[in-house]
Amino acid sequence: MDEPVYTYTQLERFALSIFQKIGCPPEQGKLATKVLLSADLRGIDSHGIARLSGYVRLWNKKRVNSTPNIRIVHESPSTAVVDGDGGLGLVVAPAAMEIAIEKAKLAGTGWVSVKNSNHFGIAGYHAMMALKHDMIGMAMTNASPLVAPTFSVERLLGTNPIAVAIPADQQPAFVADFATTTAANGKLEILQRKNLAAPVGWVQTKTGKPSTDPNEAKSGGALIPLGSDREHGSHKGFCLGAWVDIFSAVLSGANYGPWVPPFVAFLDPPSDPVGEGIGHFFGAMRVDAFRPANEFKSHMDNWISRFRKAKTIEGEDRVIIPGDPEREMEESRIKDGIPINQKVIDDLKELAASFSLKF
Amino acid sequence: MDEPVYTYTQLERFALSIFQKIGCPPEQGKLATKVLLSADLRGIDSHGIARLSGYVRLWNKKRVNSTPNIRIVHESPSTAVVDGDGGLGLVVAPAAMEIAIEKAKLAGTGWVSVKNSNHFGIAGYHAMMALKHDMIGMAMTNASPLVAPTFSVERLLGTNPIAVAIPADQQPAFVADFATTTAANGKLEILQRKNLAAPVGWVQTKTGKPSTDPNEAKSGGALIPLGSDREHGSHKGFCLGAWVDIFSAVLSGANYGPWVPPFVAFLDPPSDPVGEGIGHFFGAMRVDAFRPANEFKSHMDNWISRFRKAKTIEGEDRVIIPGDPEREMEESRIKDGIPINQKVIDDLKELAASFSLKF
Repeated sequence: MDEPVYTYTQLERFALSIFQKIGCPPEQGKLATKVLLSADLRGIDSHGIARLSGYVRLWNKKRVNSTPNIRIVHESPSTAVVDGDGGLGLVVAPAAMEIAIEKAKLAGTGWVSVKNSNHFGIAGYHAMMALKHDMIGMAMTNASPLVAPTFSVERLLGTNPIAVAIPADQQPAFVADFATTTAANGKLEILQRKNLAAPVGWVQTKTGKPSTDPNEAKSGGALIPLGSDREHGSHKGFCLGAWVDIFSAVLSGANYGPWVPPFVAFLDPPSDPVGEGIGHFFGAMRVDAFRPANEFKSHMDNWISRFRKAKTIEGEDRVIIPGDPEREMEESRIKDGIPINQKVIDDLKELAASFSLKF
Repeated sequence: MDEPVYTYTQLERFALSIFQKIGCPPEQGKLATKVLLSADLRGIDSHGIARLSGYVRLWNKKRVNSTPNIRIVHESPSTAVVDGDGGLGLVVAPAAMEIAIEKAKLAGTGWVSVKNSNHFGIAGYHAMMALKHDMIGMAMTNASPLVAPTFSVERLLGTNPIAVAIPADQQPAFVADFATTTAANGKLEILQRKNLAAPVGWVQTKTGKPSTDPNEAKSGGALIPLGSDREHGSHKGFCLGAWVDIFSAVLSGANYGPWVPPFVAFLDPPSDPVGEGIGHFFGAMRVDAFRPANEFKSHMDNWISRFRKAKTIEGEDRVIIPGDPEREMEESRIKDGIPINQKVIDDLKELAASFSLKF
């Protein structure tokens, strides 16, 4: 069962050469590589190098522009709308987050809604960009429709993640990054690969019945909003996913709801778009726009250590502070390398061959 | 089982006279009444007139200041920290939200974190204040610790609600307002009154075992974050509740986590406070700081009607757009009156008598 292990440098070299092959300018190729691989480092394997061939297939179909002119099309002192010009979200998103950070330097906070973009990797990467500026960072994105609102059989929302990164002093930062569904699609992909059943409450059949088949969404079924069913608050998960969709796409002029173009190249985008590309939303808040940063960060230390020390249920190890597992994974994978699933390796070898490269 | 019905005007007159009796200046008394009763109108009975005697008991204990000097203590172009001076949250919150709206007029967005406040009624009321300005409104608050983080037996967070109000044109506004727990405490109170069991996943025993006893939190048990258990994403509900706590209290200098003072007067606040009172967080975003308001609102109409038309699961009536049930309830209760639970009536009669008033 042991998966082959690659070093970060090996993956970096390969991803960079692929981004160069599809025509990314050098700096953008480096950035896309860094954002992409941050997912592998942090243990969110579904969003890392496993997606590289998917990006290339979109580029092959001319649905990704490798030399985008990313620009502000509307702004106020604390806001901007950014047109990603069809670029890789891996490049558009950090550019937009930088704008949010620059706005925050002057106005206290900065909020950027993005249209005409593509899949942006892990939301947490972008939110965490704020931390070194003593700012709180936020990132969200809409995504291909896979999720049925409570009481519905139609897939109208993506798994629409939210990330919030909050700096502390001695403690590592608080970094929440989660899909607004019961389980992220990546969790289902893992079960698919291993031929395992999903817990009830993750997916439903095409008629809206509970199901444990992780492949349900491939045959007309849907993922379920956080909460699993109405009695357990799935309408709240729906509210969260809807909020992300509206901030990311209705504010910016991107496609929303069922009009969001699919990530997979073999499915065509809807023929009646309501906007351009997919949408993201970013926020940066200067901590000292509220109170002195050292005061804030020392209270964050206190917050984090109090929750970390919380008495656990018998048999449970510890209370997990958001960001802990990913940070620990990153430390271990930088040191010991990154295991890659054999199916992903096969896919990357094929990708390499198509560009006369080696993986 | 039919509950006695009161008109809005009857409740309004009574609540106003109580707020006057405890010393609220006339305008503040009117505002507190309006905010309080918006909960009864919208069908969130736990947060309306049922809480009036609770506010008075806190005032009796000098834990509510009926003549607060609500003021900005720190600010930037798009942010402020407000000191509520121990006032009723019903009065402090709208004042803070007004500041957020004024900031947004100039800076595009406004974000206000509040310390030294008290329970603020329903979050939705404050978020909705933004709508008439063609702004998106947000409101959140921390609250008495009743909720155990995933894997813990300790009550470290409140039910920490989030409200997001988004304007549309022909369609009614999108108004999400939800506790970040599987079920709000008010839902448990209803089961307690009716001697009914709670679904598994709402509460846990003091050792962290699943329970169906809605009184669990009264004997050392706890409410559970949205998601119900780890497998169904309760760690995401914990992230949401933590986020609300930090934005409301660590940013402002209020009490956070287990240090939040209890709403009930018979429990003393912790003797080692980490801040002042409870905390809230408000946001206002001018829609036209992103794109022309008419464009945005017409796409919101399209968003809402598309989701409203979604094909339902057999046996289900419709997909519920956030805000629909509360708006419909408000229309019917304004017309037909507000049913009040007999236990609440008895409590209000006692309250009335203590001030030589009648209910």
